[in-house]
Amino acid sequence: MGIDLEALYIDLHRHPELSFQETRTAGVVTRALSEMGIPFEEGVGRTGVVAVIRNGDGPVVWLRTDMDALPVEERTGLDYASTARGVDPSGAAVPVMHACGHDMHVTALLGALERLAASRAEWSGTVVAVFQPAEEFGAGARAMIADGVLERFPAPDVVLGQHLTPLPAGMIGVRPGTQMSASDGLTVTLHGRGGHGSRPHATIDPITMAAATIMRLQTIVSREVDPRDVAVVTVGSVHAGLKHNIIPAEATLQLSLRYPDDAARDRVLEKVERVVRAEAAASGAEQPPTIVTDHTLPPTINDLAATDRVTTAFRREFGEHAVIDPGMFTGSEDVSWFARDSGAPLVFWFWGGVDPELFARATAAGTVDRDVPTNHSPFFAPVLHPTIERGVEALVVSAREWLG
Amino acid sequence: MGIDLEALYIDLHRHPELSFQETRTAGVVTRALSEMGIPFEEGVGRTGVVAVIRNGDGPVVWLRTDMDALPVEERTGLDYASTARGVDPSGAAVPVMHACGHDMHVTALLGALERLAASRAEWSGTVVAVFQPAEEFGAGARAMIADGVLERFPAPDVVLGQHLTPLPAGMIGVRPGTQMSASDGLTVTLHGRGGHGSRPHATIDPITMAAATIMRLQTIVSREVDPRDVAVVTVGSVHAGLKHNIIPAEATLQLSLRYPDDAARDRVLEKVERVVRAEAAASGAEQPPTIVTDHTLPPTINDLAATDRVTTAFRREFGEHAVIDPGMFTGSEDVSWFARDSGAPLVFWFWGGVDPELFARATAAGTVDRDVPTNHSPFFAPVLHPTIERGVEALVVSAREWLG
Amino acid sequence: MGIDLEALYIDLHRHPELSFQETRTAGVVTRALSEMGIPFEEGVGRTGVVAVIRNGDGPVVWLRTDMDALPVEERTGLDYASTARGVDPSGAAVPVMHACGHDMHVTALLGALERLAASRAEWSGTVVAVFQPAEEFGAGARAMIADGVLERFPAPDVVLGQHLTPLPAGMIGVRPGTQMSASDGLTVTLHGRGGHGSRPHATIDPITMAAATIMRLQTIVSREVDPRDVAVVTVGSVHAGLKHNIIPAEATLQLSLRYPDDAARDRVLEKVERVVRAEAAASGAEQPPTIVTDHTLPPTINDLAATDRVTTAFRREFGEHAVIDPGMFTGSEDVSWFARDSGAPLVFWFWGGVDPELFARATAAGTVDRDVPTNHSPFFAPVLHPTIERGVEALVVSAREWLG
Amino acid sequence: MGIDLEALYIDLHRHPELSFQETRTAGVVTRALSEMGIPFEEGVGRTGVVAVIRNGDGPVVWLRTDMDALPVEERTGLDYASTARGVDPSGAAVPVMHACGHDMHVTALLGALERLAASRAEWSGTVVAVFQPAEEFGAGARAMIADGVLERFPAPDVVLGQHLTPLPAGMIGVRPGTQMSASDGLTVTLHGRGGHGSRPHATIDPITMAAATIMRLQTIVSREVDPRDVAVVTVGSVHAGLKHNIIPAEATLQLSLRYPDDAARDRVLEKVERVVRAEAAASGAEQPPTIVTDHTLPPTINDLAATDRVTTAFRREFGEHAVIDPGMFTGSEDVSWFARDSGAPLVFWFWGGVDPELFARATAAGTVDRDVPTNHSPFFAPVLHPTIERGVEALVVSAREWLG
Repeated sequence: MGIDLEALYIDLHRHPELSFQETRTAGVVTRALSEMGIPFEEGVGRTGVVAVIRNGDGPVVWLRTDMDALPVEERTGLDYASTARGVDPSGAAVPVMHACGHDMHVTALLGALERLAASRAEWSGTVVAVFQPAEEFGAGARAMIADGVLERFPAPDVVLGQHLTPLPAGMIGVRPGTQMSASDGLTVTLHGRGGHGSRPHATIDPITMAAATIMRLQTIVSREVDPRDVAVVTVGSVHAGLKHNIIPAEATLQLSLRYPDDAARDRVLEKVERVVRAEAAASGAEQPPTIVTDHTLPPTINDLAATDRVTTAFRREFGEHAVIDPGMFTGSEDVSWFARDSGAPLVFWFWGGVDPELFARATAAGTVDRDVPTNHSPFFAPVLHPTIERGVEALVVSAREWLG
Repeated sequence: MGIDLEALYIDLHRHPELSFQETRTAGVVTRALSEMGIPFEEGVGRTGVVAVIRNGDGPVVWLRTDMDALPVEERTGLDYASTARGVDPSGAAVPVMHACGHDMHVTALLGALERLAASRAEWSGTVVAVFQPAEEFGAGARAMIADGVLERFPAPDVVLGQHLTPLPAGMIGVRPGTQMSASDGLTVTLHGRGGHGSRPHATIDPITMAAATIMRLQTIVSREVDPRDVAVVTVGSVHAGLKHNIIPAEATLQLSLRYPDDAARDRVLEKVERVVRAEAAASGAEQPPTIVTDHTLPPTINDLAATDRVTTAFRREFGEHAVIDPGMFTGSEDVSWFARDSGAPLVFWFWGGVDPELFARATAAGTVDRDVPTNHSPFFAPVLHPTIERGVEALVVSAREWLG
Repeated sequence: MGIDLEALYIDLHRHPELSFQETRTAGVVTRALSEMGIPFEEGVGRTGVVAVIRNGDGPVVWLRTDMDALPVEERTGLDYASTARGVDPSGAAVPVMHACGHDMHVTALLGALERLAASRAEWSGTVVAVFQPAEEFGAGARAMIADGVLERFPAPDVVLGQHLTPLPAGMIGVRPGTQMSASDGLTVTLHGRGGHGSRPHATIDPITMAAATIMRLQTIVSREVDPRDVAVVTVGSVHAGLKHNIIPAEATLQLSLRYPDDAARDRVLEKVERVVRAEAAASGAEQPPTIVTDHTLPPTINDLAATDRVTTAFRREFGEHAVIDPGMFTGSEDVSWFARDSGAPLVFWFWGGVDPELFARATAAGTVDRDVPTNHSPFFAPVLHPTIERGVEALVVSAREWLG
Repeated sequence: MGIDLEALYIDLHRHPELSFQETRTAGVVTRALSEMGIPFEEGVGRTGVVAVIRNGDGPVVWLRTDMDALPVEERTGLDYASTARGVDPSGAAVPVMHACGHDMHVTALLGALERLAASRAEWSGTVVAVFQPAEEFGAGARAMIADGVLERFPAPDVVLGQHLTPLPAGMIGVRPGTQMSASDGLTVTLHGRGGHGSRPHATIDPITMAAATIMRLQTIVSREVDPRDVAVVTVGSVHAGLKHNIIPAEATLQLSLRYPDDAARDRVLEKVERVVRAEAAASGAEQPPTIVTDHTLPPTINDLAATDRVTTAFRREFGEHAVIDPGMFTGSEDVSWFARDSGAPLVFWFWGGVDPELFARATAAGTVDRDVPTNHSPFFAPVLHPTIERGVEALVVSAREWLG
């Protein structure tokens, strides 16, 4: 009966879309919702979709998924691998891939809605399904909130969400308290002075400026953060120059920063700015660097009581050993904004998609980090089963904790 | 009478074309040649043009210009500034500008041909005018030679050429012996392993690898080359990554290297390769870097006797103080291939295009390198006069040394 | 009655001695033991002292202190500040200071022995007091074991020890499981080729080699260790050269590495070696670097059950809020060898020595790391009271858990 | 007859003395002068000696040598190798070696004085022999001038001097104009904040600050100096820290800078200061670095006319091919102060001390820089003959150009 979730997943995987461009994906979602007879609104927060199942009195449970893909060139070798290309915000043509599993997230949520819609007799309350765009920009949740998602739809009593992760398929990881770091994305433009590659003395070389800056940024984590704290300073991109023999006028860096809380955020941001400015000064730059914050993600903090409820239910349904505390993750999410702005508790968990045998072999060999493709890797490829089923079940089981 | 050289220059300046794409430029050239009644062949070495004036017995003088422009965004503020865009070999859309004066070189050569054609009675011999493409790739001369330019046209008894430079307009700089460095252009691809920006330990970060490599490459010139030797190691571009929070799998550097001779070339290339490989090893790279030589330019060596003839003629015509020995330049040229492969002597000189008052003020203030825009700068803007006239005269005067 | 512990502490503080040179300190200890009538042996593990109080049947409790000071020039401004100088293993004259509180450790142990000796009627069993040398070298515990301390004296049923830390005076910090990191001390010698400072090209400059190595070592913590793991790579010293204008032949680095366990140790050591070797290769070194392990410290792992007993007793005696779990420390200790080699459980705790008002002000201002002098700082200066008293009480209270 | 120059040289070589400590050397000199009956004064500029041969009317010719040795550990393996140790200005015990040939300079000057004294009948005028201390500190000439050497002795009509260099024994290198660079020696102290090696976040690590500074200083020569100019920025020493696990409060660098003239000096000094200050700022240093100029050496500029006279005389006496223009040297000297302050012309030349066969082999193999030990190398070892003889002759021949 119903939706062929495997086919739907493969279709989404073959047709990934970049952030705020998820129009085909939204179409797949709304077509499935229509088939299930679930009412929805499109275009919430640009390309988002919100569906509501009203089923009598009772709590309002938000189930949230994200929908967007990444500018990564897929190398999984799967027969349904993406060959898609897209246009990023700078206008550049880029490869696109569902390298973070959002296609699986959408699939699982549609599967859960189908199960909940089919079992209306067993529960009462309201389910709000939030298909959010642009999680990878850290911008989609804010866009939906700015578009009135918290006012136009029943406000949540609890916000539930889940994310694929490199755990064995079938496993769930969830922890009370801080589950994921806060994060900022910065763009740093270093201003030099261009000229001929053979006459460096007549220029202010932005490429050595960038290299020295990148090397110096390493010392923030290695020397300036308490070794017991969790912090990451990643330079995710560097771009400067067009040709061997022209020294360009500028270099541009994109930084991704991670920290457990807002106090750490302030300290690290101050250090990054200090390093960037001083390295420009060391080069004799005539103009200070430009630093722009592109996105800001809060820490993902799981409500203690609600997480305890969900964890207990998972253990009951999936077995004691299938549910672990994975520790804090250094990744970041914008799901928190829905909980923060509504005051509702949040429970956000991870579910595994890795072939359990591969995982076991890599664990035994101590090579998990090398052999198990992680999120954002061009080799990221969840096994279809039982990943789809466990994703569906986790949403249904947790929602039913509130819905009866 | 004749060609409006100022209008022709402005037209070329407004319509710059990237290397091996000089079709509109070649059209401007061939139209002018047709008007002057000088026979020519098009498409020599892809987009090159060769014109020949046969005028009785006597030496064969080659007058060579280049035609291509650069991926630079013009910022001169001139009312005839370029707003052109082109597509570079990687398929990227880039701004295009005549930031190295090849438009002026073409203009001067057409002006010289007009003068020589109009004064046939005064001299005898053969003039071969070579409008070469793709000097900026270091590839045009070789393309023309591969296309038979040395066999299909009268072989040179002397090869003459000139280049705009940041000297005061009206001045000539020429030196016997090594006038410009040898050069290589390399593309270095550093192979890491991509992943999520929050999990650097599961990746091999090619961006810190690139930064460390760039910093280390500086020590070749600062520590490993005799301070009395002339050598340059420029990283002209660095590109890696698409997004803040994805660590990419690769970083790509384009290097421009300069040295006075082939022995120095061998030493510096060995050092560059050593540094690049070791820095990849320091990162624990699983694959060694890929190093590709994109172009190789010989040193530009002026023939001693021929240069003496030309220098003497210039001093006689333009005045003692208008002709200087500018020292060796660290820029490079592919004009030498015509002389090397034919065995003819080469004389290659520089002529100034800077407003003499600006130059004098900057010299007095010790700020020439800062205030006088150099070749490849987005502010490169020769004054029209007497730059055009001196370029024309220099070609005519030097050619007539051989032609009588 | 008894020992004037304040006077004894001040005397020790004024006369600090470097590792394995603690002969005056051992004299102070043995004089006090003699006065108390407690039998002892000197010269155990070169400069160590072991005292034994036998008091009937019952468990054997080891109470361990360290005795050595550091090559730090005291800047506390105290009227009893050290002005001592010593000779380090290289033969260099260095300032010496009790910058890590071992003078306070000795004082507290002598105070505890006095209390235990005076209250023999209340308990039964054996107390072994171990005054260990050379903790700062990570070598004293091994020296005592090699000298038979585990065989020549009653073997421990439990090993207890304590360390001053920048907590408010009166507070105790103790945690079950891993309390302090494992650590290694390495000496890395980079081999270049010396020569005249004006002719770098005729040398292989070990100073740029060292600088590049130090910068690259930062990337181990910033890029290669899981951000959630605790690891430190400190270069504690760098020495090369004697004069401005001579490029030396060698540079020497001393590294201090920290990690939570032996698996992490193996990974980090491998990375350090990889970086050091590759950076030498990047310099074209003709000889690979020499890497010597100077000391190896195991992790300090508190026995779960024994720590629970001690923590409960501390809370009962000192108040709930005076006893905290301080988290894992990145410092290291060699006390573990006594427990590891004897198989006895270990409990090792920290006690505070900071003026509580200063601490409160700094905490409120968020400037603890800046304003509260930490161990090894030239400003390290515990307040005398109640630091001495709490140190004595903590030893007595914990020992009595076993002795009744 | 006379002095056994070989024995005298070997004696000096075995007993090298550091700058301003040349008392034994001065004793050897004065003993020889006494034996030759030449009047002298001792203690001029602390440890210098000045001898005067008055021989009737005529020009006053100054012949200058230096006397000091270097803190280098000799590794020549010669049976007369130095095993001496000295105490440097910081109080450290250091090895001492005549690694720059000043022992040979003294020997040659004594030999020349003996020849001139013995041939008084053949010439007339005055010879002033200046045995200068502390050339290696760049301080000896100024000390002698401050002590009145230009007033207390006949002022020069010409200043002549010579230096050993890695040319084949028998050869002379001399060039008109700039023969050696100007130079400064700086001491840079970087101020951090010390602490425990396991708690880098509570410190400001001066060792990463130093490493980043050293790497950045490389870009001055590689990016900011015209590749055609001669400039050197050498970090000759770096010192910080005493122990693996203490992060020190400071790091100290000694820099040796070289440039052809005073304008370049100003530019490079400004860049060095800019880099040093900015790198401290990048570390968040609470105190700016301290930069002290330890010595300043002028460029060594040979008077054109006087150099022509000397060169012609050398060619006549030693053969055309034995006298070359070696180009500008990047080493520096303080001999110029005598000429600058007196207004007399200077001629300063180099003479070779390398076994001609070794030199020829290394030249053929292209390994001169590697195989021929250069000044300041621990392997620097001139062959005794004809080095001694050519040094004596060069002084006599050049002096006789003025003395007749």
